[in-house]
Amino acid sequence: MITDLNQIFSNSANGMKRSAIREILKLTQRPEVISFAGGLPSPESFPIEQLKEISVEVLETDGVKALQYGTTEGDNRLRQILVDRYQKEGVNVNCNNLIITTSSQQGLDLIPKIFVNPADKVICGLPSYLGGIQSFANYGAELIGIKLDEKGMNSQLLEKALAELKAKGEKPKFIYTIPDFQNPAGITMPESRRLEIIEIAHKYDVLIVEDSPYREIRFNGKPQRTIYELDGTGQVIILGTMSKIFVPGFRLGWIVAHEDIIDKIVTAKQSTDLCTSAFLQKITARYFEKGYFDKNLQFIISSYREKRDAMLAAFRKYMPEGVKWTEPEGGLFLFMTLPEYMDAEELFKIAIQENVAFVLGTVFHCDGSGKNTLRMNFSYMSKEMNEEGVKRLATAIRKMMR
Amino acid sequence: MITDLNQIFSNSANGMKRSAIREILKLTQRPEVISFAGGLPSPESFPIEQLKEISVEVLETDGVKALQYGTTEGDNRLRQILVDRYQKEGVNVNCNNLIITTSSQQGLDLIPKIFVNPADKVICGLPSYLGGIQSFANYGAELIGIKLDEKGMNSQLLEKALAELKAKGEKPKFIYTIPDFQNPAGITMPESRRLEIIEIAHKYDVLIVEDSPYREIRFNGKPQRTIYELDGTGQVIILGTMSKIFVPGFRLGWIVAHEDIIDKIVTAKQSTDLCTSAFLQKITARYFEKGYFDKNLQFIISSYREKRDAMLAAFRKYMPEGVKWTEPEGGLFLFMTLPEYMDAEELFKIAIQENVAFVLGTVFHCDGSGKNTLRMNFSYMSKEMNEEGVKRLATAIRKMMR
Repeated sequence: MITDLNQIFSNSANGMKRSAIREILKLTQRPEVISFAGGLPSPESFPIEQLKEISVEVLETDGVKALQYGTTEGDNRLRQILVDRYQKEGVNVNCNNLIITTSSQQGLDLIPKIFVNPADKVICGLPSYLGGIQSFANYGAELIGIKLDEKGMNSQLLEKALAELKAKGEKPKFIYTIPDFQNPAGITMPESRRLEIIEIAHKYDVLIVEDSPYREIRFNGKPQRTIYELDGTGQVIILGTMSKIFVPGFRLGWIVAHEDIIDKIVTAKQSTDLCTSAFLQKITARYFEKGYFDKNLQFIISSYREKRDAMLAAFRKYMPEGVKWTEPEGGLFLFMTLPEYMDAEELFKIAIQENVAFVLGTVFHCDGSGKNTLRMNFSYMSKEMNEEGVKRLATAIRKMMR
Repeated sequence: MITDLNQIFSNSANGMKRSAIREILKLTQRPEVISFAGGLPSPESFPIEQLKEISVEVLETDGVKALQYGTTEGDNRLRQILVDRYQKEGVNVNCNNLIITTSSQQGLDLIPKIFVNPADKVICGLPSYLGGIQSFANYGAELIGIKLDEKGMNSQLLEKALAELKAKGEKPKFIYTIPDFQNPAGITMPESRRLEIIEIAHKYDVLIVEDSPYREIRFNGKPQRTIYELDGTGQVIILGTMSKIFVPGFRLGWIVAHEDIIDKIVTAKQSTDLCTSAFLQKITARYFEKGYFDKNLQFIISSYREKRDAMLAAFRKYMPEGVKWTEPEGGLFLFMTLPEYMDAEELFKIAIQENVAFVLGTVFHCDGSGKNTLRMNFSYMSKEMNEEGVKRLATAIRKMMR
């Protein structure tokens, strides 16, 4: 064996960290543990019977194309379906603005691949989705975290950070934001804040990456227009995914952007996996065409709404004073803030003894802050488990408070 | 829109080139063109009926896991099946040495991701698989091409290049080689040459990447042991793929390596796509378990053998003197060398008028050489088309010779 791998790993590889969440998931697989750590959609929402029917149909009617290499851009029918959905919302896009990706995590890899040189700056929320942060860091990006307030990324702090960079002759490559039911914070940006962010992005000539995995899972409140639509100038890149609104097991996502950006992403994707599975894209296209998608989405929304409600009710019932939590209008997650003196890592050890698990908030903070915060998923467990788990967590918190 | 994308694209993106092959494929889609340009497996080999049966079985018996997120390492049954096949051959591996990838092109992206810093050296064959060369270049690798002879990568030239680098205090990150039915050259490395390459790699303490997409498609001659097995010290990384021996539409590949390397690749893959489709992995595992794989592989081998034979017969019948070609013992490609004064790019223009297409050999040469060479695929078209296409190509060559 070669003498010392650490001597030949790339700088990127030497800096890589295992996903803290995926590692925690391994620790919490004892059946007695109620785990709010994952970001898994509920298996009840998986349309197994319909997929049996459609898989056979696709193989029967379009088998040769389904099993062959496809184009890098993606299946044309699926692209058109997604474009039609955006257009119906009033978003001005066509197929040249959309590429299918092998999961939206692939989008989070391709975007820094085409934009980030080592030491480039990227702006993200404090907190922000771990998979985004890690991928940007793997390309050598230096992350600048901007605190969220109750309306999402704080626009004053954003402008301050951009002004400071400008004073040093620097400009970040993009602003990474998750405006709807943010992961992990569960916060949604109102239109006023979106417009502020866009104005700042224009003023400082910076791209916005709008990561949007949960947008269609809204329980209550008014749907917000995408930052992409509000901008309207092509300065925004949307990342979408089928994982939360259909199934994660197909690994299908998409990117919407100015066609010059899509063009570069196509080139980058050629070296990454050549193309996304044509079989899975064709099944998904047919799933939309048969009207199954919208019906199942309604089921997902009402089921997750009940689960969120059960979790929020349990919070109100069991949590001791001093503990705060967000009340998301959609999505899969809410975020808890413990009293400042408490450390979520200490709590995790006690919680595991009470057979309940969560993700430490620090992993979502690129600056290592957030020690007294944690993320809770409410989509995967049943309503009853959500309630029981919150009860156990409250017990652990009370123990720690003593 | 942001002022100037070219100003904010990464160095990597600014250097990226569209796959010349994929672009040529678009040009050659007129139905009257016989195209030998692609690297497509034959659709006749796609087991459509069996996949209809298995897709339904997987959804019925294991639907929830098939449609959920999977582990980054891959489906355990599929990994075990692949490990068992290697062990049966005598290769000493276990599941910790193997990760499932979303196509072997993903392997060709993850390997430079974990090893290559900009300006690092990587050694490859002259010629060599374009998708490898391009991916390494996207990570900023400086490619050093080593000419092939009739036994594959020339070991004397390899040692010379390594000695020259060593004299400058440099060491390449790895040697990239395709020892079986090389793409594009169609050459297979005999064991003696494999042992020489291994000895040199040990002497200079360099990893070997053994790209092995065609190895199981052997028409005649003695199967060669993998470089991985012959080395036996963990200094070799194998890349495998289902695309040529099963279906490309599933985008499934794998990497075999020392477990410390696999461990780093797992971390890198987390940021790249989290995991490969569990649905497709489970279908594939069952396809092996039902014994369909080996039967279909026999069909692929005998069908491609006939197609190769038809192409070689047509070469002998139609080609003018001065044109040379390789006679591969397996795989999908053979390589042609025109008289030195001829330019394959000029030939391409004439050939397209004759309704026949190929890939220019230059795209496989990292140093831009090979202007009088071209690659021919024999797996996709029928025997009859292979013969007719070679006839047309010979006509084009004769026209150009005049």
